Amino acid sequence: MPIDPHALLAVAREEAELGKAEGGVPIGAALFDTAGTLLGRGHNRRVQDGDPSMHAETAAFRNAGRRPHYRDTIMVTTLSPCWYCSGLVRQFGIGRVVIGEAETFHGGHDWLAGLGVEITLLGDPGCTALMTEFIAARPDLWFEDIGVEKSEQDSV
Amino acid sequence: MPIDPHALLAVAREEAELGKAEGGVPIGAALFDTAGTLLGRGHNRRVQDGDPSMHAETAAFRNAGRRPHYRDTIMVTTLSPCWYCSGLVRQFGIGRVVIGEAETFHGGHDWLAGLGVEITLLGDPGCTALMTEFIAARPDLWFEDIGVEKSEQDSV
Repeated sequence: MPIDPHALLAVAREEAELGKAEGGVPIGAALFDTAGTLLGRGHNRRVQDGDPSMHAETAAFRNAGRRPHYRDTIMVTTLSPCWYCSGLVRQFGIGRVVIGEAETFHGGHDWLAGLGVEITLLGDPGCTALMTEFIAARPDLWFEDIGVEKSEQDSV
Repeated sequence: MPIDPHALLAVAREEAELGKAEGGVPIGAALFDTAGTLLGRGHNRRVQDGDPSMHAETAAFRNAGRRPHYRDTIMVTTLSPCWYCSGLVRQFGIGRVVIGEAETFHGGHDWLAGLGVEITLLGDPGCTALMTEFIAARPDLWFEDIGVEKSEQDSV
């Protein structure tokens, strides 16, 4: 049976909602194998742990534990992966990325597509609404999370 | 007084040696501001914590804690940063990267240079010896750390 990317996204979306409930950056992710088995899931932990290195994708990757390789894995994330998380996908050879939305932030997924990573952009309105609401409410936290200075925010 | 990149590298090298003593991947890093003040330091923690997301650079970045931006910071690492860690540098706008060596592994530092990041490659023999010895002793662990499958190792 082919994998339904929306079903995978639902897990990442649950993580994003957990992050929101904790007062954090509401971005979630999950790592699956190509059979659809969940390997790890997580959400951004900047606020919760005071940890700027734990974006949603890195949290899901960490929670999946050590693996010899990642060719047969799918990274699912509620938001277009930033350069940090796109670099993770490239370095570890993750074969496919399923993305909830890329309207509120456009990261490195075009770069990954050009490198042969299969990209599935779902354009999920629920994911877009979650980020739109967050960015409006906490622009300071959002721009901190992507390393953008106040003076640069107009050009994002 | 201008900053001596070799003095910064010495801190990253200490971290790499700590990692080696712990039986881990011997790569170390440190984040400084442009005045030379240490913000955070760390080393690869794959073995120690069972955490594949903690490369040396991400460990140093995490240990530096939350910051509004990184323009005025220098990432120092004993080894050329992989794509994951190069993505970190790009996303967070780290202005300069000081690298111990790029002989045993060539990551994304040329890409960063093309994006305007100041790259200082020191070609430090001690750093090269540390990695050469490690790769010879534990090729399995090294290739796991960079997500390379056994079948691909000949082409690295």
